[in-house]
Amino acid sequence: ANEDLAKERARCDFNVSEITNILDGGIERTKQRKKIESIALSNGKCCDVTPEETLGPKERYENAIRKSCLYTKIVKDQVLTLTGLEVLGSNSSVLRRTADAFFKDISPFLLHLGMFVPTIMGQGTPEQQSYWLPRALDFQIIGTYAQTELGHGTFIRGLETTATYDPDTEEFVIHSPRLTSYKWWAGGLGKTSNYCIVVAQLYTQGKCYGIHPFIVQIRDEDTHMPLPGVRVGEIGPRMGFNTADNGFLGFDHYRIPRNHMLMKNSQVLKDGTYVKVASHSKLTYGTMVFVRVMLVNEVAFNLAKAATIAVRYSAVRRQSEKISGEPEPQIIDYVTQQHKLFVCIATAHALQLSSNWLWKTFSAVLADMRGGNTENLPELHALSSCLKALSTSDSAALIEQCRLACGGHGYMLSSNLPLLYSFVTATRTYEGDYTVLLLQTARFLIKAWEQAESGNPVTPTVSYMEEAVVGNKYKWNGSAEGIIKAAYYVAAGKISSSVTSIRKRMKNGKAFEDAWELTGVQLVAAAEAHCRAVICDVYRKETVRLTANSSPNVKTVMDQLNMLYLSHWALERTGDLLRYTSTTEDDLISCQQRYEELLAAIRPNAVGLVDAFDFPDEILQSTLGAYDGRVYERLMEEALKSPLNAEPVNRSFHQYLKPLMQGKL
Amino acid sequence: ANEDLAKERARCDFNVSEITNILDGGIERTKQRKKIESIALSNGKCCDVTPEETLGPKERYENAIRKSCLYTKIVKDQVLTLTGLEVLGSNSSVLRRTADAFFKDISPFLLHLGMFVPTIMGQGTPEQQSYWLPRALDFQIIGTYAQTELGHGTFIRGLETTATYDPDTEEFVIHSPRLTSYKWWAGGLGKTSNYCIVVAQLYTQGKCYGIHPFIVQIRDEDTHMPLPGVRVGEIGPRMGFNTADNGFLGFDHYRIPRNHMLMKNSQVLKDGTYVKVASHSKLTYGTMVFVRVMLVNEVAFNLAKAATIAVRYSAVRRQSEKISGEPEPQIIDYVTQQHKLFVCIATAHALQLSSNWLWKTFSAVLADMRGGNTENLPELHALSSCLKALSTSDSAALIEQCRLACGGHGYMLSSNLPLLYSFVTATRTYEGDYTVLLLQTARFLIKAWEQAESGNPVTPTVSYMEEAVVGNKYKWNGSAEGIIKAAYYVAAGKISSSVTSIRKRMKNGKAFEDAWELTGVQLVAAAEAHCRAVICDVYRKETVRLTANSSPNVKTVMDQLNMLYLSHWALERTGDLLRYTSTTEDDLISCQQRYEELLAAIRPNAVGLVDAFDFPDEILQSTLGAYDGRVYERLMEEALKSPLNAEPVNRSFHQYLKPLMQGKL
Ligand SMILES: Cc1cc2nc3c(=O)[nH]c(=O)nc-3n(C[C@H](O)[C@H](O)[C@H](O)COP(=O)(O)OP(=O)(O)OC[C@H]3O[C@@H](n4cnc5c(N)ncnc54)[C@H](O)[C@@H]3O)c2cc1C
Ligand SMILES: Cc1cc2nc3c(=O)[nH]c(=O)nc-3n(C[C@H](O)[C@H](O)[C@H](O)COP(=O)(O)OP(=O)(O)OC[C@H]3O[C@@H](n4cnc5c(N)ncnc54)[C@H](O)[C@@H]3O)c2cc1C
Repeated sequence: ANEDLAKERARCDFNVSEITNILDGGIERTKQRKKIESIALSNGKCCDVTPEETLGPKERYENAIRKSCLYTKIVKDQVLTLTGLEVLGSNSSVLRRTADAFFKDISPFLLHLGMFVPTIMGQGTPEQQSYWLPRALDFQIIGTYAQTELGHGTFIRGLETTATYDPDTEEFVIHSPRLTSYKWWAGGLGKTSNYCIVVAQLYTQGKCYGIHPFIVQIRDEDTHMPLPGVRVGEIGPRMGFNTADNGFLGFDHYRIPRNHMLMKNSQVLKDGTYVKVASHSKLTYGTMVFVRVMLVNEVAFNLAKAATIAVRYSAVRRQSEKISGEPEPQIIDYVTQQHKLFVCIATAHALQLSSNWLWKTFSAVLADMRGGNTENLPELHALSSCLKALSTSDSAALIEQCRLACGGHGYMLSSNLPLLYSFVTATRTYEGDYTVLLLQTARFLIKAWEQAESGNPVTPTVSYMEEAVVGNKYKWNGSAEGIIKAAYYVAAGKISSSVTSIRKRMKNGKAFEDAWELTGVQLVAAAEAHCRAVICDVYRKETVRLTANSSPNVKTVMDQLNMLYLSHWALERTGDLLRYTSTTEDDLISCQQRYEELLAAIRPNAVGLVDAFDFPDEILQSTLGAYDGRVYERLMEEALKSPLNAEPVNRSFHQYLKPLMQGKL
Repeated sequence: ANEDLAKERARCDFNVSEITNILDGGIERTKQRKKIESIALSNGKCCDVTPEETLGPKERYENAIRKSCLYTKIVKDQVLTLTGLEVLGSNSSVLRRTADAFFKDISPFLLHLGMFVPTIMGQGTPEQQSYWLPRALDFQIIGTYAQTELGHGTFIRGLETTATYDPDTEEFVIHSPRLTSYKWWAGGLGKTSNYCIVVAQLYTQGKCYGIHPFIVQIRDEDTHMPLPGVRVGEIGPRMGFNTADNGFLGFDHYRIPRNHMLMKNSQVLKDGTYVKVASHSKLTYGTMVFVRVMLVNEVAFNLAKAATIAVRYSAVRRQSEKISGEPEPQIIDYVTQQHKLFVCIATAHALQLSSNWLWKTFSAVLADMRGGNTENLPELHALSSCLKALSTSDSAALIEQCRLACGGHGYMLSSNLPLLYSFVTATRTYEGDYTVLLLQTARFLIKAWEQAESGNPVTPTVSYMEEAVVGNKYKWNGSAEGIIKAAYYVAAGKISSSVTSIRKRMKNGKAFEDAWELTGVQLVAAAEAHCRAVICDVYRKETVRLTANSSPNVKTVMDQLNMLYLSHWALERTGDLLRYTSTTEDDLISCQQRYEELLAAIRPNAVGLVDAFDFPDEILQSTLGAYDGRVYERLMEEALKSPLNAEPVNRSFHQYLKPLMQGKL
């Protein structure tokens, strides 16, 4: 094992497993996670025989199916018997994370448990649930979720697939009227799934009732052949997700039974009468919020991986001379390198704790809703929208920062950093595009601002507006609470400016919607500032709460990381602070100084901090990040597996190179 | 063809080919480029038979060799007879760009003309040149450039490969003493090249004289087998460059003739005496600056491609409702989308014009040097360092912005955006890591600042310091010249702050080098600000100069783009403006307003502007960006080529999926 890493571990001054427990959500959850990991990892059957990247796309898919089936079997046979079906609820993220030991890229089964099952749970009637869920959870059928079409993603009201009810046969006729109406993107749709949730425009009794979800069988359960009237295939190579057989799907007047429409929220009766059961929009919020909480959790996990890889590698890598004649320093000793990496550790904490907190808030709102109170749902929805947007975008950017911080070797796939990026950057797009989500949040914020202006009470996450609306400028003080308050004032300032712009445009004769549209750039920035303030706030409060009983050194290092995050963002937003608070030049200079001191303070504990993420090497899958630091040996071992190295001279030499060099081509 | 695109072209109010000529560097160069393109593209022989991405890594390499050899033959047979060998000089970038019609990913020959030949030109004696160049230019041998090792990239003085002179046999013994001394990364090294420039520590008469370049034969010219004592292979899968067979290379006491050391700058005589001929460091600057100018040109070209793809797609794509019941707008009509895309067009212009300007400056400095004057070289070197850093990093970030602006479809490889990114992001690392280059620039800037402080004259690109060092704050005025001046004042302010930090640390007892190191984060930011000001300045001046005789509407739109670039960066750096100039809140508000007005003004000409980049579809290689806008049809056509779509049911169903679903696995 690498000596430098050993030294780093020796000098770490806090108890690593204490932080592991905090991040897992308690010592019991750490134990549970480790048990699940050890069952899955000790099995060994579903590992790659040759590295995935050396296979062609077809073989890669086949390998992924093999691994998915074997992993599913382990979960069914061993994990479920150990923990019960509950594992699919509270432990689903642990299972997802453990799966990363077998999949660098994405499993074709991702959408089955990630979207197919949750949609049936959220939108099926009790009877539908009792019919479909046991079959799905036992993997007798495999499903996915097809909403997006070639022509429509963001604007789902514009989907073009139709489901027309035929009372004579009591069936829906699913149809794709044109090329742009083809379903496009659903994971596992191309070759794997035999069932599928299809979102389509519902027509009955000559009227369109908007989009509704249907369970549609697309392949024969026995032969797996696409059923007549179904055209299905894979959409071709992608930046990532290349083992997930994302697919296209078109229908030619394809018939399904009436009761395959998911009818919890609205029904079509036998005679074709349309009945609305529940306030559709509010209830579907539920599934959306749930999926977003999961996503925040997942990107935090992947950012933590990237930080682990880059920090360990930076402790092993030595480069350049600081002082002529002295040994080359570990690159982690460059302050510029610390600047790139430590904010990644802090952000992984911030997002992990925010996701845990959001989960708790969500559960409370769900409980309220069961009592009939849906009042808090719009706020939660706005919050989950902007948290999803910021967490996916921050994580993607910081994973790239980790990769670039590893120099050339970060560009090797065997570092695992490029794949982490290609996965996480996709989360910026699916389940709601970044810009679109922030514009939605902005709608909520502008409404709240107007309420605050007129002296009406506002909901908790925007209560800062009540104070800010008066127009006072907040006087910066460098404490954590002071920075957070300043961040809220910045958000308020940006919201206020946006409101001013909108009103000015309306005064000049624009309609509200046009004025809104033209102010879009500012609105997105305002929503971002709001969300940043919320993350700073939640991260601070949760850090204080969760370390209340921790040992002193854990308290200290968690506080340092949190302060680092706060100062980092203050320094990234000096313009906003100067414009919307009374921060001075001297304040900024001491903030910069403080930030640089924090880098130095965290430095000796950096390796300990990433060790606390507690990734088994199997899950990390990185030549640069493995626990023992055998970086160069691993790089060479992986290189030798390249299929091009199987023979000393490639056949193309004889066919092309030699004739070219000899002037005979 | 798509109707919306036709409308866009009809409403464009300027003469597209006028701008094409400006970007190409004059009407004659446009003609020349088109001639070369038409020869290469009409040939058709070196196209892909099946899409590259559907092949396994080995087949992909073989396909790349086939295409490289055929393309080389076209160039040799047809282009050279047309234009003469000169084509390899001033037209080399045109050839490189035309090659993109055949290579989405990188050709294994890239380093042959890109580094092997230039190094012989720059560092070989006249005799060495006359021996090696004809063979290399005729492709009788194929070479690459192996500097980086597993253990060393940035710090080349730390390279571990040794070349020890043996006077008895008049040979050098090349040796790799340990794993970390293995060469790693050189393009085309793994399987393609039979020769290679190797940079190694020169030992003679018992003394080490530092790193020197050697021409080393690594494979037999007839059989292509690695020669005894040479261990060579491919380094395994990478984020991009996957057809470039980047390789590793190790030596076991491998002997080469004495005269294979490139001896223009220093020599080893027969008896082993070491003789320094020329001031090494200054002369090698030359090749480095040359390669960097080429790189700036290349990333500008790739950013222009991404902008073309995203702007055309945004004119074709319709999504969401602005006003209920109205047709969905083209997404390019969202101000947020304009905000993402128009700065990409402007940046492509800024970098293209800066690269042309740098090339002229470089030629002038070279001419000076022939006259014995090397005074301007340090300044040019500092300039090329930071321009390389900023242009590669800006282009990579903006290409990603274009990809994300295309929503899910941007994630398809067939959009070409992911590959453009993976190529351009690598340029941030090779030929000098971003951070390292900016720290080098900062050294130059701090020295210049100290000179200005003590009242000594400074060189032209830092002359702004003479005024700023007095400590006055510049009063913002929103004109182009005013914004540029403010940008220089920001740079000066950041340099001054860095100097203050360094001095403070030294006062507290730190040695200069430690104080410097600890101030690294601020120094990088200062160098970035300096370089941003230079780009703003050069872009402005070149725009004015080049459009002096243009038609009025071309003048207008070029001016708008330039102002957009300037306002964009002002708004990105509001904190700096408030801290280091006397810009006020009102100034910032009107800058924001101006920026939004510019978006609206450029909007009708956006498609015309990207058409002016004049990319044949073959070079653009994008389903989303093709000239005719047949986006959805192309996406489906490409999807159908996926090998997974060749059969309705994949064999893994029978082997794994079915047993799993039936509980029999
Ligand atoms: C890897 C991956 C996996 C996926 N998996 C699935 C899946 O399993 N099932 C499924 O159904 N879908 C899936 N999707 C599709 C995904 O949900 C969509 O890509 C996403 O909803 C964005 O929609 P779009 O691609 O149509 O982008 P568009 O909506 O076309 O957006 C393009 C651009 O227009 C802008 N824009 C659009 N509307 C507005 C507006 N109103 N205001 C301002 N700007 C706007 C956006 O900001 C963006 O810049 C997947 C996508 C990816 C990349
Ligand atoms: C696609 C690709 C193609 C390439 N092709 C070639 C080729 O053909 N021939 C060839 O010889 N090489 C090639 N290279 C190698 C390339 O030149 C090196 O990767 C590059 O020089 C960076 O060095 P490194 O990878 O060792 O990074 P390192 O120097 O190890 O840098 C790692 C990290 O340390 C930081 N760091 C290092 N030194 C300092 C310092 N003094 N101060 C502050 N921070 C520091 C860096 O900023 C970075 O964050 C290629 C690389 C790539 C990715």
